[in-house]
Amino acid sequence: MWRDLQPLGRDQRSGGYRRYAWTSADADCRAWFRAQAESRGLHCELDRNGNQWAWLGDPSAGRAVVTGSHLDSVPDGGAFDGPLGVVSAFAALDELRSRGAELTRPLGIVNFGDEEGARFGLACVGSRLTAGALTREQAFALRDGDGLTLPAAMEAAGHDPEAIGPAPERLARIDAFVELHVEQGRALDLSGDPVGLASAIWPHGRWRYDFHGEANHAGTTRLVDRRDPMLGYAETVLAARREAELAGAVATFGKIAVEPNGVNAIPSLVRGWLDSRAPDQDTLDTVVGAVQAAAREHADRHGLRLDVVRESFTPVVDFADSLRDELGRLLAPDGAPPVPVLGTGAGHDAGILSGRIPTAMLFVRNPTGVSHSPAEHAGEDDCLAGVRALADVLEGLACT
Amino acid sequence: MWRDLQPLGRDQRSGGYRRYAWTSADADCRAWFRAQAESRGLHCELDRNGNQWAWLGDPSAGRAVVTGSHLDSVPDGGAFDGPLGVVSAFAALDELRSRGAELTRPLGIVNFGDEEGARFGLACVGSRLTAGALTREQAFALRDGDGLTLPAAMEAAGHDPEAIGPAPERLARIDAFVELHVEQGRALDLSGDPVGLASAIWPHGRWRYDFHGEANHAGTTRLVDRRDPMLGYAETVLAARREAELAGAVATFGKIAVEPNGVNAIPSLVRGWLDSRAPDQDTLDTVVGAVQAAAREHADRHGLRLDVVRESFTPVVDFADSLRDELGRLLAPDGAPPVPVLGTGAGHDAGILSGRIPTAMLFVRNPTGVSHSPAEHAGEDDCLAGVRALADVLEGLACT
Repeated sequence: MWRDLQPLGRDQRSGGYRRYAWTSADADCRAWFRAQAESRGLHCELDRNGNQWAWLGDPSAGRAVVTGSHLDSVPDGGAFDGPLGVVSAFAALDELRSRGAELTRPLGIVNFGDEEGARFGLACVGSRLTAGALTREQAFALRDGDGLTLPAAMEAAGHDPEAIGPAPERLARIDAFVELHVEQGRALDLSGDPVGLASAIWPHGRWRYDFHGEANHAGTTRLVDRRDPMLGYAETVLAARREAELAGAVATFGKIAVEPNGVNAIPSLVRGWLDSRAPDQDTLDTVVGAVQAAAREHADRHGLRLDVVRESFTPVVDFADSLRDELGRLLAPDGAPPVPVLGTGAGHDAGILSGRIPTAMLFVRNPTGVSHSPAEHAGEDDCLAGVRALADVLEGLACT
Repeated sequence: MWRDLQPLGRDQRSGGYRRYAWTSADADCRAWFRAQAESRGLHCELDRNGNQWAWLGDPSAGRAVVTGSHLDSVPDGGAFDGPLGVVSAFAALDELRSRGAELTRPLGIVNFGDEEGARFGLACVGSRLTAGALTREQAFALRDGDGLTLPAAMEAAGHDPEAIGPAPERLARIDAFVELHVEQGRALDLSGDPVGLASAIWPHGRWRYDFHGEANHAGTTRLVDRRDPMLGYAETVLAARREAELAGAVATFGKIAVEPNGVNAIPSLVRGWLDSRAPDQDTLDTVVGAVQAAAREHADRHGLRLDVVRESFTPVVDFADSLRDELGRLLAPDGAPPVPVLGTGAGHDAGILSGRIPTAMLFVRNPTGVSHSPAEHAGEDDCLAGVRALADVLEGLACT
């Protein structure tokens, strides 16, 4: 499977993937998915929101068990984020068949559309639309970097945008969704386990910090006469790191826009984006409040005006306890050492769906912890352990 | 004069000027210059390097005295930087005539082309070419933001690019060049003088700092596993400010480029540009060395690779002592209080020419010190004092 999937949407220069929603690379990945499904005798369908489903058994019977992930990527993304969950789903089905397991429920494998949001700026569009967490009007207003709207891009790719919208009847037929994903951190590497279970997705927000100063000549303006917003920004970057360290959270300034951005000009505006996540809401509030207080203090000291705008916020996602406990029992039967349970700072389709149906996640060890980068990696033995774990889970859930 | 010049190349939104070399706004400014020259009976010519000259008397006779400045602007620049020197030149000639002064030498008024370098990235192109400080090959390789080369832009504006090159014979005919300029700092405001004389242009350099880290997921990468180049950058911005304060110099990070510049991505690369200037070479070396040492220390601490490249350097320009002393005598005759003499951190055409011919500069008070901004300002009384001072100087130099 990997051999056919690997070249699709790969950038020769960076070695990373550029599989963006409704592009030709995306269509190639969907064709790969269809071929995998059909070669296994699964019935393949594309739903109204651009998610691809492959079914064994009749989903209209209800009580279905579904697994899968996504095939799209961030810019210059790695080979595993998304695809590992889809490849492992097909491989787990092969494993179930070689075990001679008999399915008593419909089994679905899903490839969610536009999970990364690399093109239109919003993550998990396919699952959000299906879950009713994104309205048709909001979706129609999304634009890519070239100004093309999401419906126009869908239409160009041969998909009817008029059809998009919530699909509660589809979700009502699913009793459990299990997403397998490469870990985007080093917790399993540190604990020495190939596979883990998700407890929760950390609450997560993005804040835009606008430091307004005064444009002036970098050669002739005395330091005491300056109102240099780069200084307030730099102090705030360091404050964010400090506060995150103190609280056991993460905080990142990874995006910046400067005006006029000239070598010999003190900027008039430095705009920085803070991404912060924490294990719980209180901790996140503490970090974000402390960073903002530090930024205000430094802005005052340098004569700057500071505007802070919260651009997005996602509350904590707690995966269903009962399903997680059941997976724990299936993966560690008869007093075997328990599978580690870990939180994650990353968003997933499973997080979106968890508000509607019982949902769980399996993580596969990532020895470097690197993700969203061509250097993202998982060892072959760990990938196979992930497939076996997923097969165990599906056998336990769908063969009883 | 101001009434006709003010609307040319002005951006309605910002209120600032966008008079870039070889654009239609530039052509409008040149037409204004020609009209001013012709209305005063001056002979107007455009030289091979795009500088405009207006002559009273025959320059081929030699021993000429020249004044003037430039009419182009930085992006969203102010009304005074450049134009004040050209307007004052014409006004000083009017003043000389109203005084009945009799010129014994050819008098030239010049509008140097492309002083700010806003379009092609290199300042003082017109004077550099004339002085032989920029080769034809270097000039031909310059490109604007759209990729258009300087010769192509010249040709599009109706100027023959093949003609460009050094003009030693033109400079040999000039005995003195005096440039009047709005001050780009607050020294005259602090000393309470409307007009000052330049001692020197501070040595000045630009250094590119490339902090290489590791792209990773901002939500899932533990702080201890990060190699975040934004942290090294932020520490270095603050170190530069500290070192400049200690040394009595200036240091600015005003331009930045980040990859991939995504809200949820730890950057792989943060590229920042340091602009630093100091009263003398030793001080500049001290500041630049200390900033680089601090940057290396912080880069090591955060696991970053740091490359520092010097992109440009201009040594100190000392204006001719004898000409400055003569101007000082002309402006403060018979025991009047001496005119203040001050250094400046900004580059000028006068700085380029000072290596070839005796050169001096007059500054006019800038009450806020703001320049390269729509808020740049000089009071009417001070502008008139500047005109009278320039007339005094020209009378003393060209009427004897």
